[in-house]
Amino acid sequence: MILQPILDLVSICAQKGIKQAILSPGSRCAPLTLAFARHPDIQCRTISDERSAAFIALGMAQQLESPVVLVCTSGSAAYNYAPAIAEAYFQQVPLIVITADRPSEWIDQWDGQTIRQSDIYGRHIKASLGFPDEFSHRDKVWHAHRIVNEAINLASDFPAGPVHINIPLREPFYPESGENFEFKNIRITDTIHSRLELGDIVKVQLKEKLALHRRIVIIPGQQRPNQEISKILSLLASNQQVVVVSDVISNMQSDHTITLHDHFINHAEKLDLLKPDLIISFGKSIISKGLKNFLRTSQAEHWHIQQTGYSPDTYQSLTKILSCDTESFLKVLVEELPKNESYTNTWKELDQIAKSKLTNALDRSAFGEFKAIYKILKFIPAQAKLHIANSMSIRYMNMLGAIENEIICNRGTSGIDGSNSTAVGCTFTTKDQVILITGDLAFFYDRNAFWHNYSISNLRVILLNNHAGGIFRLIEGPSKQAELEEFFETKQNLDASHLAKEFDFEYHLALSEKDLEHSMEHFFDENTRPKLIEIKTESPRNAEILKWIKREIL
Amino acid sequence: MILQPILDLVSICAQKGIKQAILSPGSRCAPLTLAFARHPDIQCRTISDERSAAFIALGMAQQLESPVVLVCTSGSAAYNYAPAIAEAYFQQVPLIVITADRPSEWIDQWDGQTIRQSDIYGRHIKASLGFPDEFSHRDKVWHAHRIVNEAINLASDFPAGPVHINIPLREPFYPESGENFEFKNIRITDTIHSRLELGDIVKVQLKEKLALHRRIVIIPGQQRPNQEISKILSLLASNQQVVVVSDVISNMQSDHTITLHDHFINHAEKLDLLKPDLIISFGKSIISKGLKNFLRTSQAEHWHIQQTGYSPDTYQSLTKILSCDTESFLKVLVEELPKNESYTNTWKELDQIAKSKLTNALDRSAFGEFKAIYKILKFIPAQAKLHIANSMSIRYMNMLGAIENEIICNRGTSGIDGSNSTAVGCTFTTKDQVILITGDLAFFYDRNAFWHNYSISNLRVILLNNHAGGIFRLIEGPSKQAELEEFFETKQNLDASHLAKEFDFEYHLALSEKDLEHSMEHFFDENTRPKLIEIKTESPRNAEILKWIKREIL
Repeated sequence: MILQPILDLVSICAQKGIKQAILSPGSRCAPLTLAFARHPDIQCRTISDERSAAFIALGMAQQLESPVVLVCTSGSAAYNYAPAIAEAYFQQVPLIVITADRPSEWIDQWDGQTIRQSDIYGRHIKASLGFPDEFSHRDKVWHAHRIVNEAINLASDFPAGPVHINIPLREPFYPESGENFEFKNIRITDTIHSRLELGDIVKVQLKEKLALHRRIVIIPGQQRPNQEISKILSLLASNQQVVVVSDVISNMQSDHTITLHDHFINHAEKLDLLKPDLIISFGKSIISKGLKNFLRTSQAEHWHIQQTGYSPDTYQSLTKILSCDTESFLKVLVEELPKNESYTNTWKELDQIAKSKLTNALDRSAFGEFKAIYKILKFIPAQAKLHIANSMSIRYMNMLGAIENEIICNRGTSGIDGSNSTAVGCTFTTKDQVILITGDLAFFYDRNAFWHNYSISNLRVILLNNHAGGIFRLIEGPSKQAELEEFFETKQNLDASHLAKEFDFEYHLALSEKDLEHSMEHFFDENTRPKLIEIKTESPRNAEILKWIKREIL
Repeated sequence: MILQPILDLVSICAQKGIKQAILSPGSRCAPLTLAFARHPDIQCRTISDERSAAFIALGMAQQLESPVVLVCTSGSAAYNYAPAIAEAYFQQVPLIVITADRPSEWIDQWDGQTIRQSDIYGRHIKASLGFPDEFSHRDKVWHAHRIVNEAINLASDFPAGPVHINIPLREPFYPESGENFEFKNIRITDTIHSRLELGDIVKVQLKEKLALHRRIVIIPGQQRPNQEISKILSLLASNQQVVVVSDVISNMQSDHTITLHDHFINHAEKLDLLKPDLIISFGKSIISKGLKNFLRTSQAEHWHIQQTGYSPDTYQSLTKILSCDTESFLKVLVEELPKNESYTNTWKELDQIAKSKLTNALDRSAFGEFKAIYKILKFIPAQAKLHIANSMSIRYMNMLGAIENEIICNRGTSGIDGSNSTAVGCTFTTKDQVILITGDLAFFYDRNAFWHNYSISNLRVILLNNHAGGIFRLIEGPSKQAELEEFFETKQNLDASHLAKEFDFEYHLALSEKDLEHSMEHFFDENTRPKLIEIKTESPRNAEILKWIKREIL
């Protein structure tokens, strides 16, 4: 018999709006598996590799902006979730992580598939909740319902993130023959959220403080596209009230924002003219190391807008945390700030020069991975979502600037461990094309992303295969070491054609610009199978090209 | 410049006898990478997928019975080690897990590749040590040396296990041009161990207690082969002083021990005649669920021999923990125990009947995975090491009994997540053949085991591909559920031919007994490439065959 509180758990998930669950196979978790699979309002998929399963759930929850459920069995399965859970924690993506466990008396008795699961995710989880293991007292049933409500509320509350429910289960794990599952209507607890509007008195005070600053840069950190905020930013920038310096992961790039700062921020002739006296930021992290270093030495004040949570001091300048809605504060800026044409023009000119030089250089550049990305971006459909892997892929993208498509990148922990799976998760949430731009290390690392039976026909993979972790040749230190190839680049000889056959991708190979252009003609057409283009280049050659382009832009 | 304490860390490792390190690429860890790679006495290999890297190190340390070093960069890399670290913790395998980290002031400031690494392995690590992040006071240098000594001593002390050193590192990560590494001779701290011999008075007391028992079973748990203990066990059994019931992972099976208990322990007619009044165990866990249940209801006393550590009560009967060397105690038994012919014969007869019926049934059985393993075992070379994956592979092996080769199986957590990598690690320590018997789920799960540039030509993979987690069809509950194929077996359509091509395995396919026999003729010959035989069977048919064989043996 399946315990009613397990069925209730699933009912509460459904009643609170959860529609998606990613399950992994196991016996201890069978009651959960069956209950989720049989609930009419929750779509379940099963993924065998728990590491991929968790990144797939992350990729779904990123898009849905609401919690996705993960269910795995007892033992090391739970630990295979950990990389994605750390990513979700820092990227603030809501997940309900349900792990089946043995009842506590069987921990540490050398029974099979038993580890110490409570609190297993340490400080990378918003909460770790222990489900009751027996229900003889009615308070236990109430507590079980309580835990599930609390987990979903917590996961969703700002800053969103993963919450763990560990569920001890005793045999039998399977229903008796003819046993029906009754999904009851359970009392649920919802949170009603408010907008966080600054009060009038506070506004007056802030306006006074703002008046002390003339050179204001806004740094939007990583976030999902937001039309309303984008509009206000464009207005602020086009009014020349502020400079908006937007990394590609901010999803806030426009013609009015600075996007090519990576090319001039470290060696502009008149760097002092760029220095702000006030930095205003919101969203999460940025990519540009140059921009971070520039801001850290700017001696500006830094105001960071976030509703709640711990406050990072990324630019070593933090003076104010604005606990309010981003729009409400940005609107104050529109009303209050005067123009500063000379300051904003200094930035804008450098950005425009970089743009024209970059375009010119790329048009003349030899074929390599930088040029390949540049070319491909001209072909991508307007509605496509772009998943970009760490580490060189996202850096190239940031060097190109002004992308209109949604950009998704696992910058919570900046790992290469789950880019494929995160993109696969995204395909489960949209009919639009999902385009993954990735290097060979990230791609082969996470190949189990494709090991399941669900359609990912809207996935397009752009694989930059330079047979190495090419970034190590592009940064100063390692490129000079004798150990470069074996221990840094970790040269690897795979090509993706075998994988493409195995997982039924339409496969394209590009060794030249001509190949690439030919493939691109129909690459983004609809198809019944996913497609992959493998762009083979040489790591040393890519390094030369990048150096050449950088020289051309100087 | 590379900090001298980092070079000293490597010197201490080498001075204390560490000869092997598995590195994964990264920039933050570069000083460690370079120091390990440049030390003349430590062999380094680089593995890109940290999950595989850690299982490979585990597979090496299992064989070497001494610590292997792991080095990874900051961020989620450390979490990808976690499944193997949990396995090492419960399997008591020594690992020195070194993670590069940012200095503590940069944690939680949204800088890239930064998570909360201190104590990241929770309760699955013997110790988590924080390396100093600056050395301005000489005590810091002393402390750094202290930590490394302590980590290696702790990892090796009984029960062996993983120890974590988290190392905060600041830029620069790379040596200056022309900088030489000086590996100094550092003072080290060694532990001198004693044998744990029972005292004479204690021996007299134990002999008195032993005299109260007539029906004694010895249950050796998982351990490495040990000639001396095996000899004593064989003597005790052949003298008919005790019954030795030996699972396949005990590496203590012989003609004198009971090995086919799985076939009769749950339905022997005269189960009461088998019941012991004293269970004596040593080593780690056993596989047989039937044996565990039988012992849990036996109402016997249970004495467990282990030097130190927490004491599991696997049979719910534990009365005495013998903190002594296993041999020294077993020798007391040889001297003291009288024969009990009727008790030992009851077991022996059931085992022999099972053996003759099993052989007979397998000879007559249709071709399926059970028969395939039975056939293959006749071909394996005497010195080969057998790595067996969880879950059905190891169960089949336990049903076959009496294996002379060393058997290795990740029974610490009993996961399927690292079987390939563990076997690959084993190949790095021996010229003997390493044979991996695995199901398709375990095999494809851990395919990144093969993603590196090191020779594994002595690896032979026996892949039982039934396109599913076949165990779920063999156990009662799930086989009756509508969700069997999608959510339990997780039917998957891969075959290994693509993978074989990609990773340069000699590939064999067996669809029949004839194919298998043909392939086996030269399968275990030496070769310059690893070999893989894919035995394709159908999950439902395997289930039928197993049922049929079980009926034949009853």
